[in-house]
Amino acid sequence: MSKNSNFGFMTKGRLEAFSDGVIAIIITIMVLEMKVPHDASLEALKPLLPVFLSYVLSFVNVGIYWNNHHHMFHIANKINAGVMWTNMHLLFWLSLFPFVAGWMGENHFSLWPVVMYGAVSCMCGVAYYFLAHCLASLHGKESPIAVAFGKDWKGITSVIFYLVGIGLAFISPWMGIACYFIVAAMWFIPDKRMEKALDN
Amino acid sequence: MSKNSNFGFMTKGRLEAFSDGVIAIIITIMVLEMKVPHDASLEALKPLLPVFLSYVLSFVNVGIYWNNHHHMFHIANKINAGVMWTNMHLLFWLSLFPFVAGWMGENHFSLWPVVMYGAVSCMCGVAYYFLAHCLASLHGKESPIAVAFGKDWKGITSVIFYLVGIGLAFISPWMGIACYFIVAAMWFIPDKRMEKALDN
Amino acid sequence: MSKNSNFGFMTKGRLEAFSDGVIAIIITIMVLEMKVPHDASLEALKPLLPVFLSYVLSFVNVGIYWNNHHHMFHIANKINAGVMWTNMHLLFWLSLFPFVAGWMGENHFSLWPVVMYGAVSCMCGVAYYFLAHCLASLHGKESPIAVAFGKDWKGITSVIFYLVGIGLAFISPWMGIACYFIVAAMWFIPDKRMEKALDN
Amino acid sequence: MSKNSNFGFMTKGRLEAFSDGVIAIIITIMVLEMKVPHDASLEALKPLLPVFLSYVLSFVNVGIYWNNHHHMFHIANKINAGVMWTNMHLLFWLSLFPFVAGWMGENHFSLWPVVMYGAVSCMCGVAYYFLAHCLASLHGKESPIAVAFGKDWKGITSVIFYLVGIGLAFISPWMGIACYFIVAAMWFIPDKRMEKALDN
Repeated sequence: MSKNSNFGFMTKGRLEAFSDGVIAIIITIMVLEMKVPHDASLEALKPLLPVFLSYVLSFVNVGIYWNNHHHMFHIANKINAGVMWTNMHLLFWLSLFPFVAGWMGENHFSLWPVVMYGAVSCMCGVAYYFLAHCLASLHGKESPIAVAFGKDWKGITSVIFYLVGIGLAFISPWMGIACYFIVAAMWFIPDKRMEKALDN
Repeated sequence: MSKNSNFGFMTKGRLEAFSDGVIAIIITIMVLEMKVPHDASLEALKPLLPVFLSYVLSFVNVGIYWNNHHHMFHIANKINAGVMWTNMHLLFWLSLFPFVAGWMGENHFSLWPVVMYGAVSCMCGVAYYFLAHCLASLHGKESPIAVAFGKDWKGITSVIFYLVGIGLAFISPWMGIACYFIVAAMWFIPDKRMEKALDN
Repeated sequence: MSKNSNFGFMTKGRLEAFSDGVIAIIITIMVLEMKVPHDASLEALKPLLPVFLSYVLSFVNVGIYWNNHHHMFHIANKINAGVMWTNMHLLFWLSLFPFVAGWMGENHFSLWPVVMYGAVSCMCGVAYYFLAHCLASLHGKESPIAVAFGKDWKGITSVIFYLVGIGLAFISPWMGIACYFIVAAMWFIPDKRMEKALDN
Repeated sequence: MSKNSNFGFMTKGRLEAFSDGVIAIIITIMVLEMKVPHDASLEALKPLLPVFLSYVLSFVNVGIYWNNHHHMFHIANKINAGVMWTNMHLLFWLSLFPFVAGWMGENHFSLWPVVMYGAVSCMCGVAYYFLAHCLASLHGKESPIAVAFGKDWKGITSVIFYLVGIGLAFISPWMGIACYFIVAAMWFIPDKRMEKALDN
């Protein structure tokens, strides 16, 4: 039993380490989309302002995912092949953030980049939902992790908000952006359900 | 003895951490090959579609290697200089994935890029085979890791399929691609031999 | 209690690992701003000299942050959501170093790049100050970490020096650079307060 | 005492993790210097051949440093500020490998790039020597790590060979390259002194 749980820990540890590595790289290479201007004047920075804003939003978004990933695996105590692959699936969609963030920033938040940004955000939300449910079902209905998620209204709400945001972007891209910010604000505070589960 | 196995663990730990780091970077910098288009229209994304497909295939391939690397070292309990260098050799070939993936995607899966993609995939398979056998011989014939690998038909089959895929690419590149997908599908499910070894 | 502190350790461990990853990437991708010249002559390296100097200063700066981050978390034994987000906030400002370092180097230390470099350095100092105080207040007034920081004259002095440097840059950019070097020299020696706290 | 050694372990652990991260990134971003050709023909790869050879040599070189770094810290059991900064100094010189490797490859091993490659290699050797002696003097004259290094003829020989290689490059760059290869071959086999120290 002690050996078994040790096995579980080591496996979880390496999955966390690999995810940390990938997320750390994603969050850092996004800055490479802000190309160094050749001119030394202050005006040379102006066209970079939307790229910077897009970077800030994406940094916060990826930071939120790392934060919640951290909380979720903190109360998990075993993993299996399904968790490994749903985790890889989440990392895949997260890895598209540098691309859509760069595209959105360089095109000053115009329609299609905003829609694509929402689509990638939405897929990240769906992938996180899959991962969470995969972990919950592995740990059993009565487990802290399953109880902590419950019906996961937060995950579902996020995905709905992203879809609404994509729709609203066709009226005005900034309305879409507003929706994405609301989701970010909603997740900014770490998941209380997880913290409650830790206290028990 | 306890001290000895502790030594073994620490060494293995750092090898895993280093490999995780390299693989995490490989899998993430591949996305940099999808250059952000300057145009904001949906049509601007069209030429990126083959690059995206190539990214997906490569993400899955590198993900499979990480997954199996993880499983293999999970049941290993010591390493030596041979393991270190065969591992480095595997990382070398894996590090060429961003290059061949970018070349294949940008040239819409035409002949030579597909052939080179297969050649790099094939060399990764060979390098993985070397690493596995190096680990197995270090642990001895009766060890779980050696038994788990057995004749390693799966590793040999992969290499053969890659060679067949390279050959078929000269008839049609898509037939080569199909072969590469078959190998990916074959490895997608984590190595049952390893899981069986863990249960004993 | 033993379980509890174990929880605390694991959480801290992953925060450290993630921060290490991000800082390692920041410090390493800065070198990508030194574009490989197409010419093979020694003269081809000349225009890269200021980029190289800017890289050296930034490498030392980011190295100092890693060093002090390491020392600070070494005597911390728990974290919370506030620490997580103030840490993320610090990483955000650190991630702008490759951009401002590249801009300053490519423009031979002219006015605005030097001012922006100072501004980012200053924000890093402010962010580090927030993180330190967040950790200190979490551990309580009597804790080693809170005592170690005390009034944190060093953090406050750094921020003041950066502001003075930004002001002096308008007279001569090199006077600003001199100020930044003084701060770097001041931090180069690891925080004695931390080491004292460890000895007790 | 148990607590103390625990402290030592944790600190060492994070230094190793950070170094692993930086070295993993260095070894992987070098591949980005092999720019994906726009043409799909086999001839399009020809101009990349020297870049590839330069990549192979540099991959092996950085791999050797990781390998020996790993061995050295394996028998170390404490670190201090001096070790931290000599380690940072080593990482700085290693971080210049992608630049000199790219320059040397793109210019087909012509004089100055080969000289600069040797200079960076030489500085890495010097930095490694500093780090090793800093660790040895911290552990005391009778410690396994100090005994293992002894007079460190290997480190001194490497630096001398690099200097000779730089000199010979002025006659023919390929003679310089040959010298660099000899050093790589000399280090390829992990340090026996370290393994002997571990056995005692």
